[in-house]
Amino acid sequence: MSEPSWIGFDADDTLWHNENIFERVHERYFELLRRHHDAATVEKALFATEMRNLPLYGYGIKGFMLSSIETALTITDGAFSPGEIQELIALGKEMLDHPVELLEGAHEALDALAPRHRLLLITKGDLRDQERKLAKSGLAHRFQAIEIVSEKDTGTYGRILQRHAISAGRFLMVGNSMKSDILPVLALGGAGVHVPYRITWSHENAEAPTGAEGRLFHAASLRELPGIVERWR
Amino acid sequence: MSEPSWIGFDADDTLWHNENIFERVHERYFELLRRHHDAATVEKALFATEMRNLPLYGYGIKGFMLSSIETALTITDGAFSPGEIQELIALGKEMLDHPVELLEGAHEALDALAPRHRLLLITKGDLRDQERKLAKSGLAHRFQAIEIVSEKDTGTYGRILQRHAISAGRFLMVGNSMKSDILPVLALGGAGVHVPYRITWSHENAEAPTGAEGRLFHAASLRELPGIVERWR
Repeated sequence: MSEPSWIGFDADDTLWHNENIFERVHERYFELLRRHHDAATVEKALFATEMRNLPLYGYGIKGFMLSSIETALTITDGAFSPGEIQELIALGKEMLDHPVELLEGAHEALDALAPRHRLLLITKGDLRDQERKLAKSGLAHRFQAIEIVSEKDTGTYGRILQRHAISAGRFLMVGNSMKSDILPVLALGGAGVHVPYRITWSHENAEAPTGAEGRLFHAASLRELPGIVERWR
Repeated sequence: MSEPSWIGFDADDTLWHNENIFERVHERYFELLRRHHDAATVEKALFATEMRNLPLYGYGIKGFMLSSIETALTITDGAFSPGEIQELIALGKEMLDHPVELLEGAHEALDALAPRHRLLLITKGDLRDQERKLAKSGLAHRFQAIEIVSEKDTGTYGRILQRHAISAGRFLMVGNSMKSDILPVLALGGAGVHVPYRITWSHENAEAPTGAEGRLFHAASLRELPGIVERWR
């Protein structure tokens, strides 16, 4: 028997919608701050706060909530009412309690691949929030292992491959973020399938690399994944 | 060769100080709210908010920060100034950036046990925050595996034992929380060493069980641990 092949899946915006929820919350946030600043100014200030806080907070909704409160207080010189802060907290809780909406083709791709490959879920963010979404997704039983990590870089992927005794040459990672899902895996000698989501958080933007022929694939939706995996093998 | 024995360690308030940092922040919090309510009232309201938010936020400092802001806004009927909220955020960031102070005997216990046992770290809280503390502690290299989990119950411990192919009879868990570190492990047939910290968060309080003779040990400090492990084996 040949060595088994492993397929890693990102979760947010790869298996289920996530950024669209943030998008709606951002709209509401701009609305709340409209009497102080235009949306572009607010967006820029919020992103700067998030980037400054990222080393302390990590990824996830709670960090977003704290950064959105901090930004609002800062850019309004304190003229942001307690009631409005309570609105922001309520908005964050809604995000945390949001239903999980699977992306088109997610179920079918996992159905097609599970019988012949080992599937891994590799996702970053708040521990409890990712577990909640996975439970709500109904997809947990598809995966041999679930890895919830604080950062997705070559070090992280290297440790995961080692823990499960996976050769990089037999590993294919599927995700919407070129920066977090694809580039580190290509750097380790693995393969990647980039499935862009409709919108990408600026922090996750990166250029596609050159020199990864035969290891870097692009798909418009997860429906194309089983065919790509056939070509990769 | 006999089956190896595994020793699990809790982290917060077992290997390093944690609750004392919360204690100092609580003092500062009571101070900020003193003109509205006495400390006991504030404490009670904060704890109620934390318990209500626990399913959504999970354990950790970011959840605490959000709950402390929410409580302040609620119990002051909004008469809590934006500047004071910024103080709460700054206080939370200080907690997240706090130096790690090891508990007495932690180094020595790990030095004594590492050569003859497999050591596991099992801790709950924010992913990034726990990783940061572990890195700052200088203890990471002592552990065969690090498990950062969102809840410490029998299900969690059962999965960890299974993942590392550990028999419950060869597993001893060391921690300050009877509820999270000791009871679930005893329920699975493992052993526990309860090392109480000076203060315990009310949520972690639980009675010691009966009927766990020879599997439940008590220590005043980690200095006693190597001797207890000898008796257990």
